Amino acid sequence: MSTQNTTAFAHLQSLLDRIPLTIAMQAKLTEYDGSQLAMSVPLAPNINDKGCAFGGSLASLMTITCWGLVELAARERGYDCDIYVGESTVKYLQPVWGDFQAEARLAGKGGWDIFFATLANRGRARAHIVAEVPGVDGKPAASLDARFVAKRRTIAA
Amino acid sequence: MSTQNTTAFAHLQSLLDRIPLTIAMQAKLTEYDGSQLAMSVPLAPNINDKGCAFGGSLASLMTITCWGLVELAARERGYDCDIYVGESTVKYLQPVWGDFQAEARLAGKGGWDIFFATLANRGRARAHIVAEVPGVDGKPAASLDARFVAKRRTIAA
Repeated sequence: MSTQNTTAFAHLQSLLDRIPLTIAMQAKLTEYDGSQLAMSVPLAPNINDKGCAFGGSLASLMTITCWGLVELAARERGYDCDIYVGESTVKYLQPVWGDFQAEARLAGKGGWDIFFATLANRGRARAHIVAEVPGVDGKPAASLDARFVAKRRTIAA
Repeated sequence: MSTQNTTAFAHLQSLLDRIPLTIAMQAKLTEYDGSQLAMSVPLAPNINDKGCAFGGSLASLMTITCWGLVELAARERGYDCDIYVGESTVKYLQPVWGDFQAEARLAGKGGWDIFFATLANRGRARAHIVAEVPGVDGKPAASLDARFVAKRRTIAA
């Protein structure tokens, strides 16, 4: 990671450390390569009554990973934004019997250029983000398709 | 509530007490009238970095309330089922600045008859459940539209 990426990553961790539910879930940032963000949790605090992953934890981890991706992408470009999830669809495809990870990326192949051009011009922009929790046999255990809105606050120093 | 409803309600509470994330959220069953189930949480354990309700908490509370509704409806009819969420769409419509509640009900006007006839005949059935978190001005702050699957284990004693 570049120094700017590392600073943005540390800032995101500090935001996550202020959200009680991500603390309760023991959610950790695990990987960021500039286009995909991964976060992971242990099963124990995210288990349901049947002994597998609680649906709320799967949805929450995918949502927060998508949100974190937008936050990182904005901050490493010098933007300080309020970022909100607007709408999301979650598919629960396989039960998850162990620790799990969510991987989030921008949907489509266009990259962030239009998003940041819109954010620069209008002060707000929408992003379509997708996430998956990898399951067995190379298939996702859960997936999320979400729309986020970023509103620019100021240009970060 | 009838005695059977009260027993089903107590059983649901005992299931919720085994899910760490609902404990962390401080989620409580608040009302059940035979067709709608409500659950509530305080804001503090469900707050985000901006001081309003965390999206993951809104989604989780609506999901668990829908799940609880299917669990209650099944149990008060003597069915012991594994109940899974299959797919859900969440809309985040207003920020939530205080304690909040989710209210879940069966979608449509047909009632539970087809669902339980299918469950009796085939051992599994699908239910379409909707939930809302009431917001200001009589409008929802968030809504969820979800598909659940119930699989019969045994007929409860």
